[in-house]
Amino acid sequence: MNALYFSANFANLENKIAMILLDGKKISAEIKAELKKEIEKIKASGGKIPHLAAILVGNDGASETYVKSKVKSCQEVGFHSTLLRLKADISEAALLAEIQKMNQNPEIDGFIVQLPLPKHISENKIIENIAPEKDVDGFHPINIGRMTKNLPAYIPATPFGILQLLERYQIETTSKHCVVVGRSHIVGSPISILMARNAPIGNCTVTLCHSKTKDLSYFTQKADILIVALGKPEFIEAYMVKDGAVVVDVGITRLPDENSAKGYKIVGDVKFEEVAPKCSYITPVPGGVGPMTVVSLLQNTLFAAKKQVYLPNPF
Amino acid sequence: MNALYFSANFANLENKIAMILLDGKKISAEIKAELKKEIEKIKASGGKIPHLAAILVGNDGASETYVKSKVKSCQEVGFHSTLLRLKADISEAALLAEIQKMNQNPEIDGFIVQLPLPKHISENKIIENIAPEKDVDGFHPINIGRMTKNLPAYIPATPFGILQLLERYQIETTSKHCVVVGRSHIVGSPISILMARNAPIGNCTVTLCHSKTKDLSYFTQKADILIVALGKPEFIEAYMVKDGAVVVDVGITRLPDENSAKGYKIVGDVKFEEVAPKCSYITPVPGGVGPMTVVSLLQNTLFAAKKQVYLPNPF
Repeated sequence: MNALYFSANFANLENKIAMILLDGKKISAEIKAELKKEIEKIKASGGKIPHLAAILVGNDGASETYVKSKVKSCQEVGFHSTLLRLKADISEAALLAEIQKMNQNPEIDGFIVQLPLPKHISENKIIENIAPEKDVDGFHPINIGRMTKNLPAYIPATPFGILQLLERYQIETTSKHCVVVGRSHIVGSPISILMARNAPIGNCTVTLCHSKTKDLSYFTQKADILIVALGKPEFIEAYMVKDGAVVVDVGITRLPDENSAKGYKIVGDVKFEEVAPKCSYITPVPGGVGPMTVVSLLQNTLFAAKKQVYLPNPF
Repeated sequence: MNALYFSANFANLENKIAMILLDGKKISAEIKAELKKEIEKIKASGGKIPHLAAILVGNDGASETYVKSKVKSCQEVGFHSTLLRLKADISEAALLAEIQKMNQNPEIDGFIVQLPLPKHISENKIIENIAPEKDVDGFHPINIGRMTKNLPAYIPATPFGILQLLERYQIETTSKHCVVVGRSHIVGSPISILMARNAPIGNCTVTLCHSKTKDLSYFTQKADILIVALGKPEFIEAYMVKDGAVVVDVGITRLPDENSAKGYKIVGDVKFEEVAPKCSYITPVPGGVGPMTVVSLLQNTLFAAKKQVYLPNPF
């Protein structure tokens, strides 16, 4: 692993700092290259090419973007992919019927239902009807429960991406104090569980903070590893971060920006320019956790195709 | 709720202290009385009497004690109970067959398999084969996952007992710093998840400590609510606890004691005599969390009989 030293391309950083960017773009490209090689081997030996399907209900702009990026990534590494578009007014029963078809289709190794769903449909009911062995998003309670019990499971893509980023940069986690900000079911809650598990990337003392936390900076200032998944742009300021901390920024928000040709800029939950100089490692936004999420979904799909998580008997 | 003030019946406590015992014996008796009333109503209306079954494999002394206490508690409140004894050398396949029978038997609302099991049997496989709607121990991954996602689920008996103890003593948990020591799948891990959930007894900032935690006292000293589930007798000393803390001691160990007629004494993970004077609330051992565990199992069984957790559609 080449350490990517951060030399000042931000206006108010004048000196070269021994801070290392957790470069999700670079690492995800490396993992994609590894996946591509593996697919070529599978092809050469006549094995089954992994096949990811995505169900997109309605026409939400952000959901379109996410799903397209997933399909595109499948193509890049040589996976098969299917995009099933359904109308926003589809009934819950009709969506459940489509899920049953996916569950039973031996061609499809794993599939996801892009969230959020229209309000007349219960997301929880939909998720629980996905066959656990095809639930490559890792949102089915049985996968969450197995993950919690440190049993074989699909780990949700964003937390899985964070673990891999820490692993590839060989960041020591054992006995570190990890503070997680945000308790969403998709990121904060599972990453807090994962970082505390008895596992190579784990074994942290973990503090989970959230909207009801009093005096948040009291906790964030104590973090050796700070993982922020709040969805509040540039919320974490320099005074909230300990010198030498590892900072993982899961936030991604578009802010209006007159100076940009696009009219917006993408920012994370961390004020990067002022926080970065204090860190030993930090993820940029964009180009940090984001690209790791998509590649982790591909890895889960490969596990599914190879029956590496759910064998006939996983124990 | 009558506050039970702790007057010095311990040798080295000379003054009456405004410390309140979290009296699990008393609260569990109250809950049992409530259950008994409810069963009488169900009987009067011709409803189904809750029926708990327990499977005991082999002759482990501690397991015998636990199972007998569960069966006895069923009788006290008017539940039906069944104890199925199986030989220690039963094959995994034969045990799975017994579990299938329990799953399919409409008479039995909930059942438990007393752990530990003999080494030739996979506990995880056994647990995953219990029908989730009859898994009143709450150990099935789907119940752990649903609990984590704040969905209807059976909560494992010991954590459920702790929540109820805090609730009955009207202890404010929101925005408090809860420190959990121990990450077992049965107590530490689930209680750390529960205390952080967005729920009436929850909403704590939670720190989970374990065997890999460095400088444990640094963390325990900061706890507003300290939950100890280590299994190390009298491990938590006074200097490790903040003044005014709420202390929940899950440990229970027999130590040799020449001064006792029985030849042993029961102690928790907390040095009660020196820690208690610093606390606002503390559980005694015995008589704290222990009795709450059994009564929580009964409550889960009542939920099962009433289909309150797993309806045909739980969402």
